[in-house]
Amino acid sequence: MLPFDIQEYQERLQKTKHRMMENDIEVLLITDPANMNYLTGYDAWSFYVHQMVVIIIDEPQPLWIGRYLDASGARLKTWIYDDNIIPYPDYYVHSKVYHPMTFIGEILTQIGQGNRNIGVEMDSYYFSARAYVKLQQALPNAVFKDGDLIVNAVRIVKSDQEIEYMKKAAVLGDQAMHHGIENIRIGSRECDAAAHIYYNLISGTEEFGGDYSSIVPLLPSGKNTGIPHLTWTDRPFEDGDSTIIELAGCYNRYHVPLARTVTIGNPDERLHQLTPIVQEGIAAVLDRAKPGATCGDMEEAWRTTISKYGIEKEARLGYSVGLGYPPDWGEHTASIRRDDQTVLEPNMTFHLIPALWFDQYGIEISETLRITETGCKTFSKYPRELIVQHPFLLNQHGGEIS
Amino acid sequence: MLPFDIQEYQERLQKTKHRMMENDIEVLLITDPANMNYLTGYDAWSFYVHQMVVIIIDEPQPLWIGRYLDASGARLKTWIYDDNIIPYPDYYVHSKVYHPMTFIGEILTQIGQGNRNIGVEMDSYYFSARAYVKLQQALPNAVFKDGDLIVNAVRIVKSDQEIEYMKKAAVLGDQAMHHGIENIRIGSRECDAAAHIYYNLISGTEEFGGDYSSIVPLLPSGKNTGIPHLTWTDRPFEDGDSTIIELAGCYNRYHVPLARTVTIGNPDERLHQLTPIVQEGIAAVLDRAKPGATCGDMEEAWRTTISKYGIEKEARLGYSVGLGYPPDWGEHTASIRRDDQTVLEPNMTFHLIPALWFDQYGIEISETLRITETGCKTFSKYPRELIVQHPFLLNQHGGEIS
Repeated sequence: MLPFDIQEYQERLQKTKHRMMENDIEVLLITDPANMNYLTGYDAWSFYVHQMVVIIIDEPQPLWIGRYLDASGARLKTWIYDDNIIPYPDYYVHSKVYHPMTFIGEILTQIGQGNRNIGVEMDSYYFSARAYVKLQQALPNAVFKDGDLIVNAVRIVKSDQEIEYMKKAAVLGDQAMHHGIENIRIGSRECDAAAHIYYNLISGTEEFGGDYSSIVPLLPSGKNTGIPHLTWTDRPFEDGDSTIIELAGCYNRYHVPLARTVTIGNPDERLHQLTPIVQEGIAAVLDRAKPGATCGDMEEAWRTTISKYGIEKEARLGYSVGLGYPPDWGEHTASIRRDDQTVLEPNMTFHLIPALWFDQYGIEISETLRITETGCKTFSKYPRELIVQHPFLLNQHGGEIS
Repeated sequence: MLPFDIQEYQERLQKTKHRMMENDIEVLLITDPANMNYLTGYDAWSFYVHQMVVIIIDEPQPLWIGRYLDASGARLKTWIYDDNIIPYPDYYVHSKVYHPMTFIGEILTQIGQGNRNIGVEMDSYYFSARAYVKLQQALPNAVFKDGDLIVNAVRIVKSDQEIEYMKKAAVLGDQAMHHGIENIRIGSRECDAAAHIYYNLISGTEEFGGDYSSIVPLLPSGKNTGIPHLTWTDRPFEDGDSTIIELAGCYNRYHVPLARTVTIGNPDERLHQLTPIVQEGIAAVLDRAKPGATCGDMEEAWRTTISKYGIEKEARLGYSVGLGYPPDWGEHTASIRRDDQTVLEPNMTFHLIPALWFDQYGIEISETLRITETGCKTFSKYPRELIVQHPFLLNQHGGEIS
């Protein structure tokens, strides 16, 4: 049932404890669902209620604490002993009176952890301001420490098994990109292209199916391609439209993002001019990406290349990627940006997305890459090009799905 | 471009300000993406970085503050004047050094709001513990107040236009349920059923397309139907399997959830026995749901009915539903549970999901309902039954989508 050997989970736990010691943390409360999954295998859409995995520095097993009706999922999906799965009653859910962190504080006190150095993930989506306040009230003798990104930092270097899952995710992403682009024609709507993307991401191949990705397919189109985080509408595509597709194949919650830009009919002259610049910039970054170089070096390779053409880019170029849950597939550790001193190591993985956005148009051509022993390799096999689509649907059965 | 008249947004803003006054809040910082959308129209997948809408009690227009590359989306998608859209630079994103709440605190100080009573959404997913700490540091002269659920409380009664969007969402949900169930056969995998659900939710009808729902389709199957929040795998369906599908049609971010239970071949005897009990319980709740009754009354109608058969249910029966963003389509205000004293009013909408989960099996049959002037109406037209599926795929082209 578990996607990794128990030994791999135990190694992750040891690395986490090592970082806890470096940060003088005795008890780490993990609320980021990706970190919960990484250490225990837990995987369910239950993160809309408060829940956590607790790592105690001198205990061999984590604890899972969550809503009682999710506890059976924790028993099924993790390597944690059943005794270490602690459910809270349903009246704590979305209540004006009760808060799950009060319950959790009481449990930690009962098991003798209430007076220790307790690390919390301060900027996790799933550790709210109130969660912090309630926990502090419930644990007046604890010393709270910033435990943010401790597990994320362990996640940055992937195991070979994780890389295998990302290779499968890349297959899913490539086929979804293919079918999405195939449905960007006159006679089709943005929602039709998005539906084909989803179908292909999830039905997968005959050998394996796909998982939901942490971000939905992004599909800014027409005059909005300068606005990267728009989702689809039901607007019909028009001749001359350009559309950006950013998606990720996802397998066992491991993501390989990919972005491409498509035009219907002849591309806008500006896109035509930008494409070789972006291609040259990406090639320069891939050439620079190798063990010992830094994320900042990758950014410099890009900047040096595009500045020859008088172009600047403010936004970061990319970020560490892999395991994730909504709302983000980024790992929130290394960014490919100026001054990021993260030193590259084999099996680090990044989404390199040196997109250029302007007022009325934009271009995205991205690659997800893995640092190898000697350089780097991209996951996707999709052509690194501006895609120019014949206006009319060649593939008429594209709309007929039951 | 906006899904509602500006007048409707202004009415929502007035109601919000009224509640701010009741709570002695002069400045409300809104970080819940559904609340941001509700008051301004803002809609993009940008909530994985810190962003907010600011309501100042004595200013006619909200402010939008977010990442600079999302500001163009705010200009496009909201009724806010361009001058009220305030971008922060990209180096604030996922940085170990800079935090967006520091920037936001400085802006609030500059515009003379730094010494006021400031409400924050204490239990919002997108207002982290660190966001709160950084904001307090940046605004030492402010008095912080709990502004959680202030806008959600306004959202609980829908306008007629919101109800129209929910009716469209119901059409999407029904067709997705139909095609999902159609693909629960021997020869199909859980991921294939999920892919068909997604395709139909999003491609929609010829008249309108669908939006992504805030929770992915949940699909616990086989021995796991007692674990409600599991997502699909690529396991092939087997004869005798039961599967629960919980999904929501979504239109303009308005959700109508729907759950059904399907068996391949003859149902387990226990499901067969539970079905009429659940049906009777739902009918009793729908009969009790009318203006003037409370959420607690609805729960009592259910409890009285099922207790005749010796069954108890710990989890709440349902919750207020409508506008939403991941990770939840529930509104976090009223719950259909014992002691919830929310008085029902016309155009309140609830997902009634009186599911029963046991160790190795479970049943979910749900309805989303609207309180009318005299009673209530359900949105879905899907038969309220346990669905018994012939084992083999009748619909062989179901797998052939491009």
